[in-house]
Amino acid sequence: MSTVAGYYTTQFGELWDKSLFDLVEEAMQGVIKNTKIKKESIDAIFFGNMLSGLLDNNLHASAKIAEILGVHVPVFRIESACASGGMAFHLANKYIESSSAKTVLVIGAEKMTDYSPEQTTKGLAAASSGEEQEVGLTFPGLYAMMAREYLTRFNYTEENLAYVSHKNHYHGSLNEKAHFKRKISVEQVLKSSYVADPLKVLDCAPISDGASAVLLTVDKKILKRNKHCKVLSSEAATDSISLKYRKSLDEIYSTKLAAQKAFQKAKIKPSDINVAELHDCFSIAELFAMEAIGFWKKGEAGKNIKELGTMFGSGGSLTVNTSGGLKAAGHPVGATGIKQIGEIYLQLTKQAKNRQVKAKYGLAQNVGGSGGTSVVTILSI
Amino acid sequence: MSTVAGYYTTQFGELWDKSLFDLVEEAMQGVIKNTKIKKESIDAIFFGNMLSGLLDNNLHASAKIAEILGVHVPVFRIESACASGGMAFHLANKYIESSSAKTVLVIGAEKMTDYSPEQTTKGLAAASSGEEQEVGLTFPGLYAMMAREYLTRFNYTEENLAYVSHKNHYHGSLNEKAHFKRKISVEQVLKSSYVADPLKVLDCAPISDGASAVLLTVDKKILKRNKHCKVLSSEAATDSISLKYRKSLDEIYSTKLAAQKAFQKAKIKPSDINVAELHDCFSIAELFAMEAIGFWKKGEAGKNIKELGTMFGSGGSLTVNTSGGLKAAGHPVGATGIKQIGEIYLQLTKQAKNRQVKAKYGLAQNVGGSGGTSVVTILSI
Repeated sequence: MSTVAGYYTTQFGELWDKSLFDLVEEAMQGVIKNTKIKKESIDAIFFGNMLSGLLDNNLHASAKIAEILGVHVPVFRIESACASGGMAFHLANKYIESSSAKTVLVIGAEKMTDYSPEQTTKGLAAASSGEEQEVGLTFPGLYAMMAREYLTRFNYTEENLAYVSHKNHYHGSLNEKAHFKRKISVEQVLKSSYVADPLKVLDCAPISDGASAVLLTVDKKILKRNKHCKVLSSEAATDSISLKYRKSLDEIYSTKLAAQKAFQKAKIKPSDINVAELHDCFSIAELFAMEAIGFWKKGEAGKNIKELGTMFGSGGSLTVNTSGGLKAAGHPVGATGIKQIGEIYLQLTKQAKNRQVKAKYGLAQNVGGSGGTSVVTILSI
Repeated sequence: MSTVAGYYTTQFGELWDKSLFDLVEEAMQGVIKNTKIKKESIDAIFFGNMLSGLLDNNLHASAKIAEILGVHVPVFRIESACASGGMAFHLANKYIESSSAKTVLVIGAEKMTDYSPEQTTKGLAAASSGEEQEVGLTFPGLYAMMAREYLTRFNYTEENLAYVSHKNHYHGSLNEKAHFKRKISVEQVLKSSYVADPLKVLDCAPISDGASAVLLTVDKKILKRNKHCKVLSSEAATDSISLKYRKSLDEIYSTKLAAQKAFQKAKIKPSDINVAELHDCFSIAELFAMEAIGFWKKGEAGKNIKELGTMFGSGGSLTVNTSGGLKAAGHPVGATGIKQIGEIYLQLTKQAKNRQVKAKYGLAQNVGGSGGTSVVTILSI
């Protein structure tokens, strides 16, 4: 069974003085330094990234990363929209399970703020189908349709969504690497401007720069000198890219499937999880995740979130998005899936400082696009 | 040990009436039909593609492929410049070795001809480093520098390169799926216009559309009713993306490393190989490959190629690029690595018709950029 034995993340935010590969280099060197390994111990590298082709005209990151580190090992770029990081981790884990490597470096990174809003918006729309792009549906537009369906079906209002951002911004205020470190109230969310009705600007994750890296290993020497946690399972599933072919609009079905497989393999159940990083690209997405994973029953997330039992310090048995989530920690697309796993690693190995929860089992859920891809990873001490 | 149990390729060429995902669909359905499997037998899908983000504004092919096939299994897009197909195959093979899947569909595809030459040239330049792009180095320019170094060092002329295209176009004339089916003489190559001295237009692989797919499986039921060949090994290596950081200009060092690992794992030696598909994006690249893999000694490829012992019908023990190679079969970037493996599959399972050679062992070598990534796969009956 492979093990996460180290983590490093750059600051998330608007990092005007760093290029994509500056961030990649900082994250790689950071995790190498943190784990006190030599680069020669690394057998393979997986890189999760969405936009380097469109925004940096780089479509050969494998060789660029080999150049930066001065190594000749296999390097793989995995692209799966906003699930690029999670999918890279998933494949890195399978690579170790195939006995092809003992130690693998997994990096996720994105540089998004050096470009015009038109370029970034077009790039993000590439996660949706050609048909959806042609009719002018933006990314917030897709999630707005899903949110509207959910609110209508279960008789909720925008207030039910606002609690997600309130909670995650509180967590962001506890995370020095977060893009946004200020707390926001439910009222502030409700008073913010609409982006795509019913989603307002404070329901939406920001455009961020950042890179995160974890070290995955089965090497006992590395484990001996580093805090580590086990990868019980990492499972992926897909759904149609276009909303119109989905079974229903008010769920992330691919997360449901990936979670079922992940719990089956980990031999635990949702109620065993103490800490989770969920893909809250929009507030509604965290509610969908809570239901799809089985933490809460279908239709009840809108009600339950108002109790704030998943907020740090509430005393609840499950704390969600202690990093601040995508909403407050920021969403450098390719980095997100790795930062999620890194946050769970920090929590399980008691390195989460001022936001430390008591946890034996943790879960990370990373979503591509409007739910076309999901990866669910379960970790334990 | 996993097994290639089926192959389908679309026509390669200028396919004006097909989109990228039309080609992907044709290749997927083609291999499903050829192997008489139900889509429910497929546990995972790997997709090798370079340019879908830049040219099609699709950066979520995993979900698009799930939509086309109507499945929910994990789908992975692997991007590694011109080695995208080979790297997808490599990871698919490891995925089966990790016991995560019994049957995996591996597709490579590229749609390149619907765009302006500027767009395509910019896209292909994305395989080189930012520094190389900034100084105006094009892809033929990079290989021209490498070719010049080789010709000078070993005292060869452009004629030594021309034999590669002559041979591969003869093979293309035997392959109904090839982009170019006409034979060309050494004189015709030498008389063609310069693209980047010493490389002329007939030294260069074309811009093509196409998709290829193979079925990789350990499922005995599928093997029972399909011709198949074994994957003895599939190994990858990298080098710096920029030429200026390489040990030398007149070799593909990453191929040397990948081949060494692949032969070690397969427990055979280069002289055992009877048929090989090598990455002849430019004529010089086939000579580099022959030397890096160990078929010929360093510096001797320029001389040896003139004997045409690797041409179909020569009676030599090793025939190279029976598909026509990238030069004549065409080079739809992501498809190339899969077509190479498909061609070896056809040869080993005696389905290569008018270009059938006698072969027990076959090898495919797929290169990214100017040699920043290499994958070497060894197959046997």
